[in-house]
Amino acid sequence: MSYFDAASSLPLHPVARQALLAALDEGWADPGRPHREGRRARMLLDAARESAAEAVGCRPDELHFTPSGTHALHSGVAGALAGRRRVGRRLVVAAVEHSAVLHAAEAHERIGGSVRQVGVDRAGRVDPREFAEAVGAGSTGAGGAGATGGAEGAGAAAGGAAGLACLQSANHEVGTVQPVEEVADACAEAGVPLLVDAAQSLPWGPVPGSWSLLAGSAHKWGGPGGVGLLVVRKGTRFAPQGPVDERESGRAPGFENIPGIVAAAASLRAVRAEADAETARLRELTALIRARVPELVPDAEVVGDPERRLPHLVTFSCLYVDGEALLHALDAAGFSVSSGSSCTSSTLTPSHVLRAMGVLSEGNVRVSLPPGTEEADVERFLQRLPEAVASVRGRVPGVRADAGGAAGGGMTLGGGGGTGGAAGGEVTVDARGKRCPVPVIELAKVVGRLPEGGVVTVLADDEAAALDIPAWCEMTGNTFEGRDGESYRVRRVAGA
Amino acid sequence: MSYFDAASSLPLHPVARQALLAALDEGWADPGRPHREGRRARMLLDAARESAAEAVGCRPDELHFTPSGTHALHSGVAGALAGRRRVGRRLVVAAVEHSAVLHAAEAHERIGGSVRQVGVDRAGRVDPREFAEAVGAGSTGAGGAGATGGAEGAGAAAGGAAGLACLQSANHEVGTVQPVEEVADACAEAGVPLLVDAAQSLPWGPVPGSWSLLAGSAHKWGGPGGVGLLVVRKGTRFAPQGPVDERESGRAPGFENIPGIVAAAASLRAVRAEADAETARLRELTALIRARVPELVPDAEVVGDPERRLPHLVTFSCLYVDGEALLHALDAAGFSVSSGSSCTSSTLTPSHVLRAMGVLSEGNVRVSLPPGTEEADVERFLQRLPEAVASVRGRVPGVRADAGGAAGGGMTLGGGGGTGGAAGGEVTVDARGKRCPVPVIELAKVVGRLPEGGVVTVLADDEAAALDIPAWCEMTGNTFEGRDGESYRVRRVAGA
Repeated sequence: MSYFDAASSLPLHPVARQALLAALDEGWADPGRPHREGRRARMLLDAARESAAEAVGCRPDELHFTPSGTHALHSGVAGALAGRRRVGRRLVVAAVEHSAVLHAAEAHERIGGSVRQVGVDRAGRVDPREFAEAVGAGSTGAGGAGATGGAEGAGAAAGGAAGLACLQSANHEVGTVQPVEEVADACAEAGVPLLVDAAQSLPWGPVPGSWSLLAGSAHKWGGPGGVGLLVVRKGTRFAPQGPVDERESGRAPGFENIPGIVAAAASLRAVRAEADAETARLRELTALIRARVPELVPDAEVVGDPERRLPHLVTFSCLYVDGEALLHALDAAGFSVSSGSSCTSSTLTPSHVLRAMGVLSEGNVRVSLPPGTEEADVERFLQRLPEAVASVRGRVPGVRADAGGAAGGGMTLGGGGGTGGAAGGEVTVDARGKRCPVPVIELAKVVGRLPEGGVVTVLADDEAAALDIPAWCEMTGNTFEGRDGESYRVRRVAGA
Repeated sequence: MSYFDAASSLPLHPVARQALLAALDEGWADPGRPHREGRRARMLLDAARESAAEAVGCRPDELHFTPSGTHALHSGVAGALAGRRRVGRRLVVAAVEHSAVLHAAEAHERIGGSVRQVGVDRAGRVDPREFAEAVGAGSTGAGGAGATGGAEGAGAAAGGAAGLACLQSANHEVGTVQPVEEVADACAEAGVPLLVDAAQSLPWGPVPGSWSLLAGSAHKWGGPGGVGLLVVRKGTRFAPQGPVDERESGRAPGFENIPGIVAAAASLRAVRAEADAETARLRELTALIRARVPELVPDAEVVGDPERRLPHLVTFSCLYVDGEALLHALDAAGFSVSSGSSCTSSTLTPSHVLRAMGVLSEGNVRVSLPPGTEEADVERFLQRLPEAVASVRGRVPGVRADAGGAAGGGMTLGGGGGTGGAAGGEVTVDARGKRCPVPVIELAKVVGRLPEGGVVTVLADDEAAALDIPAWCEMTGNTFEGRDGESYRVRRVAGA
């Protein structure tokens, strides 16, 4: 069994386990009490705070332990926005932020604030100039020097400086590293605090630059569940929301989980000690996956920035594959991976990250290697993957065998097949009521049978089609001619 | 060393420790993922939920694990009030609720809601009729039958049914058990949900009655820190506040702390198995303390209901004693206890619980015995207590030896001393700028030297004086004649 879902959660690091056991005996009392058990608990808490602060690169009194990374993001966004309520109520976020940030943004909108999402390129990366412009940098400061970037830029800068900007250090689904340092500089110049969601990158190193707030989550670095951290740098205006509580400087209510905190701090220190060596090693293993998957699996696309990326994470999508079915096939083959595919999400919409990138969401697989993963494990994965994909492609639910005579065991859909039995230059495929990847599969079946320049109109009401049909065209070289409601037009290109 | 602060936090129960260790290996993955590690974590979470629900007396799908008891109370109050926003925006709470409830009430006021605090008797208990009336029970339903109770009652019932009522199952500072079942019936009849803070009583048994919401905290029953629970019974309107999150049915955002949850559930089951035997045993030990403290310590008062009380908790106050100094003296003598005294609180105001009860807050000590406490430990405590109190009484900071010639090593203040050197029938003591217990000590010094009917005017700006001067009069038999700003009038009663 190989666990390749480190970006979701890691097993407890052995050092964390030892620290936890010790702290269970010493750290159970209320650190707010003056008796000796309370003082002992307080000492453990203080020591953990110092250790974590050193790893993060901040002062101990700037670091607050929270019950989760999600809690840190929720309370960090709300507190920073409330602290600057009179300055600006616009929240700027990257479109590919973790859902915890996007949900905090929705909550901000519900109380009357505004939110500006900054898009990303096909690799999932924000343009630092566009981001800076959205924040309001350049509208004050050096007149006319920078900032005429994206099409939406000019309009967004209107309204003065933002209340808060949020940018992840690296993306959790595709591993792309964001230009945090540049953006932080621009934010600092504009006087806008930047909150960095560092959940995915914190195990690998501190976040450089002049950010104002930072959030992290211990179970991503081998610490236990139930521990997050929120850093609020001195000088950052911050007004905690919700009921008052005196614990963690008023920034995380409730009795402190000291054994968990102690274990989290110990684990962060331990993974950092191994970070350089593991970065080099895992980067090679993920490079191997990036290179080999497109060779091994027909109609697969590796997504995310090929260079500016997390060392341990690689994501790819496979055409004509139901993502959930592929996860199950890989699980049965002994590999635990994750997916941003629409078909596994409880909301039945495609991953907002893949959508913002404009890449295929079908048959999406995220491989995130835990420290210590061996090359042999990765080789075994690459060996079993093609078979898993083929098995799923062979049994996509809802594909009718009578839909046009195509397919069969070894499907080679979408490739350069002949013109087959299609009657004329214009065909309509009705895939309404069918979930991804069926619309694309039905599209692929008929395109191959059209003459060059022939047009397929796909009727589809699954929102994922809006992402997957254009992405399929981009991958296969056919032309996407546009969408009108539930109707998508695709023109065949010869040799595609 | 004897740890007598169980009501703050308990060491991890051995059963919880075992469960935690096992769950560290099995429960670290994301229970929302479909791979086998995720499914294994989900199974542990589901089993813990079933076990906890059985102990609480609810359905598993009504019980949500939260990061703390405080979090459960904050989100429970906010969610229940938001769910009934259109019905009623009045929140009714007992004046002696835990600060987490009172802080949630303040937050409700900040967003435009109203709060009605229902007072308690000198034992710390609410009158169920008065509480029901404040909730609005009786304003609908059986016309004119009940409800003419307290002085504030009639006015408070105006405005129809409340949005939510909160009543603790038992008080955390004095151990008084509240009439939850009666109040729950009245609330149910009025159609108002009742949220029960069961943090202190849950180790001893389920909360009976038709309550709608319930909160608890695992570290109070030998579970780990970082785990609380919120029960929302089916049919209770509930609208979670803050950013959306899909975990724990949307009622507790953030990655679940599954090892902690598993340990918490195991511990609750374990303490319940021992609850009957421990209840009987500890009840005798606390009865011993209740009976002996007033005999052993001059000018000490045991507070809280003598019968309707938690088995393991007893609280007393000692005149002329600085609470913090007494805690340190007891700590040095090997006993870890707690205090609701003004002098130990970071806010420098007396415990709101003692204030609501109208009892002395000076030199307050809460003894809460962990399961397994031996009679010999309690005997040792009773043996050392008088010496600890005497040592602190001998060195109260800020008492000037020149203030009137009284005192010395073995102070017998406030008792029936002679008329001493006081000049006339009216004396003013200026204790402004001095913190408790100094104002009462200076009062006691001069009263003894006045003739019967003589009056002392105490000038004091420490808010605790407003509680302690009347309480001192009640204890010593002198007459409290009233307060005018910072001026308090006390008349000497002969023999007092």
